[in-house]
Amino acid sequence: MDCWVDGQPADSLSLKDRGLAYGDGLFETIAVRGGQPILLDRHLARLAEGCTRLAIVADIELIGDELLRYAAAMGEGVLKLILTRGDGQRGYAPDPTAPGRRILQGNPPAAYPAAHAEQGIRLFPCTTRLSRQPLLAGLKHLNRLEQVLARAEWQDGEHAEGLMLDRTGRVIEGVFSNLFIVRDGVLMTPDLQRCGVAGVMRAEILFQAESLAIPSQITDIRLEQLQWADEVFVCNSVYGVWPVRAYAALSWPVGPLTRKLQTLARALLDA
Amino acid sequence: MDCWVDGQPADSLSLKDRGLAYGDGLFETIAVRGGQPILLDRHLARLAEGCTRLAIVADIELIGDELLRYAAAMGEGVLKLILTRGDGQRGYAPDPTAPGRRILQGNPPAAYPAAHAEQGIRLFPCTTRLSRQPLLAGLKHLNRLEQVLARAEWQDGEHAEGLMLDRTGRVIEGVFSNLFIVRDGVLMTPDLQRCGVAGVMRAEILFQAESLAIPSQITDIRLEQLQWADEVFVCNSVYGVWPVRAYAALSWPVGPLTRKLQTLARALLDA
Repeated sequence: MDCWVDGQPADSLSLKDRGLAYGDGLFETIAVRGGQPILLDRHLARLAEGCTRLAIVADIELIGDELLRYAAAMGEGVLKLILTRGDGQRGYAPDPTAPGRRILQGNPPAAYPAAHAEQGIRLFPCTTRLSRQPLLAGLKHLNRLEQVLARAEWQDGEHAEGLMLDRTGRVIEGVFSNLFIVRDGVLMTPDLQRCGVAGVMRAEILFQAESLAIPSQITDIRLEQLQWADEVFVCNSVYGVWPVRAYAALSWPVGPLTRKLQTLARALLDA
Repeated sequence: MDCWVDGQPADSLSLKDRGLAYGDGLFETIAVRGGQPILLDRHLARLAEGCTRLAIVADIELIGDELLRYAAAMGEGVLKLILTRGDGQRGYAPDPTAPGRRILQGNPPAAYPAAHAEQGIRLFPCTTRLSRQPLLAGLKHLNRLEQVLARAEWQDGEHAEGLMLDRTGRVIEGVFSNLFIVRDGVLMTPDLQRCGVAGVMRAEILFQAESLAIPSQITDIRLEQLQWADEVFVCNSVYGVWPVRAYAALSWPVGPLTRKLQTLARALLDA
């Protein structure tokens, strides 16, 4: 399907765009099923928070309408929204009144092996560490060189994802996923106030856990703590939930809470 | 002047470019005088180092030839080269064989007030801290949100530049400049192994200092040490050298070593 730029079909971008010049913008990757963007409100909420924190001017309601129209035309697949600060002149200073630029790209449904969800995956131990930057933490912004470097660390098919730590040895997230562990019936996921992307599926899982009265914690998790986990899984808004079976010398069974939350995610994504 | 993309006149970019998607690329901002790109070899050396560290495939010799041709056609101004990893598919994994994409943009000469160079400038105390990421430190890569946030901290005309620190209170650089101090005849500039951009004019000034037998050090400089400086200046490859007269409650005279190095930079840039 054609891309849209600011609501119009387009196949190219201005060379003055600040998304290109500085990674000055945000993005969302949205599953589309039956013409519907899944978890749209959560995607829009994160986007709105990013616009506030980066002072990017955007009409979130208009973006929501546009995503609905684009998804309806797509039918099935993965919709990527890039919101940049628009064109710039020379220099870093942003124009506080310039409207952001909306780029919508439709891709076919992601084709991950079914075994990832069924039997679980192995995480690659990435040596690229996430840097601490509270001003950007949680946002899905366009400065993603750390993820590019981390993803380039493995080429084998044995690892479906990689685990990223911060410099002090805290577990933060996957390269394109969030991470949860289960210990004694408690669901835990890393605090993302210093670094990391606060994923939409992570938010949904925390919400579902609350609805089901499953105790959950957002907390610092050190690498050493992984060995005490009863279950480990990763999630994102495109594939849902993948159980984690192994990381380096550690291994875990696919647990019941992982399966329960996976089923809920699948219900959303198979809608 | 028209932009060039991979050697051809163009005014737009593929929406699949990884420079847009992830800030996956590098850039150089080069002064052009009399049809010549100034300090071209230093710009190409930094670019080559960036390509090696990010594993971006590029023919540096071809880029050099292209910059010479573009500069000759421009005559006077500021030439910006953006080198991205080229088009990508969905996902962070880079294609290790895909050639980088070269984008050349010509801009008019920078129009800074002459007073910046003559009387010196005041530095704004930016609260945005540079995060520590040794894998990216020194490179002029496209992940520049920290600079965007820092530059948005002031709008007044009283501050020509802002000073950026790391999280531990070390002085690192200006938003678009490198910083030097002079103390007891010794030239000092911050170590950029954890964060910061290793500027081409910084390298040239260190080289000139060595040629003149001026002792110099690349070292950690804490904010408290600024008050002991005899002279402070900032530099980049477009404006040369600006003396720093004030930062918050601190002030300095415009010193003789600053003037000497400014004269050398001017000789290059006024060539």
